[in-house]
Amino acid sequence: MATVPMITDEEASAEVRAVFDDIRKTRNTNFINNFWRGLANDPKQMKAVWEEIKAVMGPGTLDPLTKEMIYIAVSAANACSYCIHSHTAAAKAKGMSAEQHGELMRVIALAGKTNHAVNAMQLEVDEAFKV
Amino acid sequence: MATVPMITDEEASAEVRAVFDDIRKTRNTNFINNFWRGLANDPKQMKAVWEEIKAVMGPGTLDPLTKEMIYIAVSAANACSYCIHSHTAAAKAKGMSAEQHGELMRVIALAGKTNHAVNAMQLEVDEAFKV
Amino acid sequence: MATVPMITDEEASAEVRAVFDDIRKTRNTNFINNFWRGLANDPKQMKAVWEEIKAVMGPGTLDPLTKEMIYIAVSAANACSYCIHSHTAAAKAKGMSAEQHGELMRVIALAGKTNHAVNAMQLEVDEAFKV
Amino acid sequence: MATVPMITDEEASAEVRAVFDDIRKTRNTNFINNFWRGLANDPKQMKAVWEEIKAVMGPGTLDPLTKEMIYIAVSAANACSYCIHSHTAAAKAKGMSAEQHGELMRVIALAGKTNHAVNAMQLEVDEAFKV
Amino acid sequence: MATVPMITDEEASAEVRAVFDDIRKTRNTNFINNFWRGLANDPKQMKAVWEEIKAVMGPGTLDPLTKEMIYIAVSAANACSYCIHSHTAAAKAKGMSAEQHGELMRVIALAGKTNHAVNAMQLEVDEAFKV
Amino acid sequence: MATVPMITDEEASAEVRAVFDDIRKTRNTNFINNFWRGLANDPKQMKAVWEEIKAVMGPGTLDPLTKEMIYIAVSAANACSYCIHSHTAAAKAKGMSAEQHGELMRVIALAGKTNHAVNAMQLEVDEAFKV
Repeated sequence: MATVPMITDEEASAEVRAVFDDIRKTRNTNFINNFWRGLANDPKQMKAVWEEIKAVMGPGTLDPLTKEMIYIAVSAANACSYCIHSHTAAAKAKGMSAEQHGELMRVIALAGKTNHAVNAMQLEVDEAFKV
Repeated sequence: MATVPMITDEEASAEVRAVFDDIRKTRNTNFINNFWRGLANDPKQMKAVWEEIKAVMGPGTLDPLTKEMIYIAVSAANACSYCIHSHTAAAKAKGMSAEQHGELMRVIALAGKTNHAVNAMQLEVDEAFKV
Repeated sequence: MATVPMITDEEASAEVRAVFDDIRKTRNTNFINNFWRGLANDPKQMKAVWEEIKAVMGPGTLDPLTKEMIYIAVSAANACSYCIHSHTAAAKAKGMSAEQHGELMRVIALAGKTNHAVNAMQLEVDEAFKV
Repeated sequence: MATVPMITDEEASAEVRAVFDDIRKTRNTNFINNFWRGLANDPKQMKAVWEEIKAVMGPGTLDPLTKEMIYIAVSAANACSYCIHSHTAAAKAKGMSAEQHGELMRVIALAGKTNHAVNAMQLEVDEAFKV
Repeated sequence: MATVPMITDEEASAEVRAVFDDIRKTRNTNFINNFWRGLANDPKQMKAVWEEIKAVMGPGTLDPLTKEMIYIAVSAANACSYCIHSHTAAAKAKGMSAEQHGELMRVIALAGKTNHAVNAMQLEVDEAFKV
Repeated sequence: MATVPMITDEEASAEVRAVFDDIRKTRNTNFINNFWRGLANDPKQMKAVWEEIKAVMGPGTLDPLTKEMIYIAVSAANACSYCIHSHTAAAKAKGMSAEQHGELMRVIALAGKTNHAVNAMQLEVDEAFKV
């Protein structure tokens, strides 16, 4: 159970309802996941996060699937269970194959390994990397 | 200063030297960065990590630049300063543009933001994400 | 299920019982939460933690509610699910309003965002901050 | 050295210059810290972060000093060195006394301690916390 | 529910089956835990991880129980719930007593505490530690 | 530079001086490292942490060197640079060999790797681990 109530469609204020509507239209689905129902307790924050996600996760010089995989990587390092589930679902919906998922997990695991080894050794940054 | 000595070419055992040689040949440079000079204190581990990095970070269903960006993302979440420097240098060497770098940082920042918000709310994973 | 047994009132040693009694008296409730039932496997540690919590979390130059919110912030960053639940309950019991909870979560989210952005950029500390 | 160049006043585009100007006016100082000079590589992100910080960190149901202390707490847990320095400076500028700083650090330390103990025990959330 | 399917014995390829067999023989049990059933989605990675675990976690200059406790310590800091459960079970199977478990948790808790305090203070490394 | 002043012997209050004296006597050295000079800004906290460290890190069912290695492991996962330096120095002073240090780093690295892989897969805890 969450530390905030999940705002239902019925409980949604006009401001929240407008974001719910935009999420439904943008994603072409009636489903509103708990992230939005939780954020809806703070309608201004909810709207700001939705605008930010639309601006950041859409196509740019990186494609949307690459961005979802980067999102999963950060979320795995931060042990954010919900985030890993939701962004893995999003990545699959955007076409991530099982092979790509496997490669993503290998890179995440390798980075976790060397991050820990490097921290334990407290390596100094090479001059060559400072340019 | 690191918690282990940086192994110089002169101090390198034959086993370490062989890995140094392979790194130089593979990367087409004479430069050996501190990561390898630190790991060289444990030659077996060093060789195993080098083989793993070659296997994981090469081309596959994800391209090498995408993998470097995922590596940076994990390293930023883990606050591994050396890793961020070395993999940002690697990503730039593999062609990451300033625009791609900027987009990468926006995704990392957004993931950091929502990871924290979601953890603070302790959201339950939606049934729809469990399929 | 936890990795240690939850110590019931019946199983509690005299040393543990004394701490249970003090918790009940101090909090004016019969309820002993799992944190204490788990720590009770190591009575000395349990007693020391209880004394520390009473000393640190009581009123001082910061008020108890502010301290609970700081506690939630650290726990969110560390992805400690139990801690977030228990200290959010404590903060609500100490009067945290829904508006304050919302503001707390905005600050936690913003800090998570900029922590990640700053780590990804590996910014040098300004001289002005070193005084 | 950072992984992105620090944008000087001379290099700043009109868009960046406008944010620099607003920072200077809002804070009543000529000093622009590295956080903004680094973010300025991505003017849109820089402007968005500045607007978010102004909206979140200003007075509300929590006072600005409390927010700075929450920010420090998250940053300590995330090991974001720059963030700890800059927000500690900000907290001091907003009147944080040495005693308050000391209390803040005690709470951060205690939370770090119990977060680790609780994670090691994998405690189940009490039913009483789920209401 | 995991983000990857758990590979059953029936679904296992010959390559996966060979690792399952080796796990069963090495551990002298028929039980294959979810870690391996999840990794089995990427047979090469699964085999590599199994070989690494056998090489690293076996006896050396540190005994296997000490290694399990170090593993638990890292996993607690990283909030990896599954890892804490599986390695605590492994440590108990290797003879960890309740007293040792208690001492382990005290050290983990103390390290978590001082890690947070030190990060909040941003202490400079003493010259004496740099030799 | 730290966010708090380092308290010199001359600036030390009687309470702080008493702890400095005990540290010097217990460790049989005149050297007081920055951890204590920083904590000395809050004499009560300093004294409490010193008493806790003496109680936790001394011999018990785990030997002091094992405890130092567990401390390093947590500190590496938490990216606490100062802590890694100081506890690696302590471990070496307590007899940690280069081989033991190498093994410690392999376990830390492996745990970092599997922690990340497991988090990315969101594995469910096996029933067998819940007993």
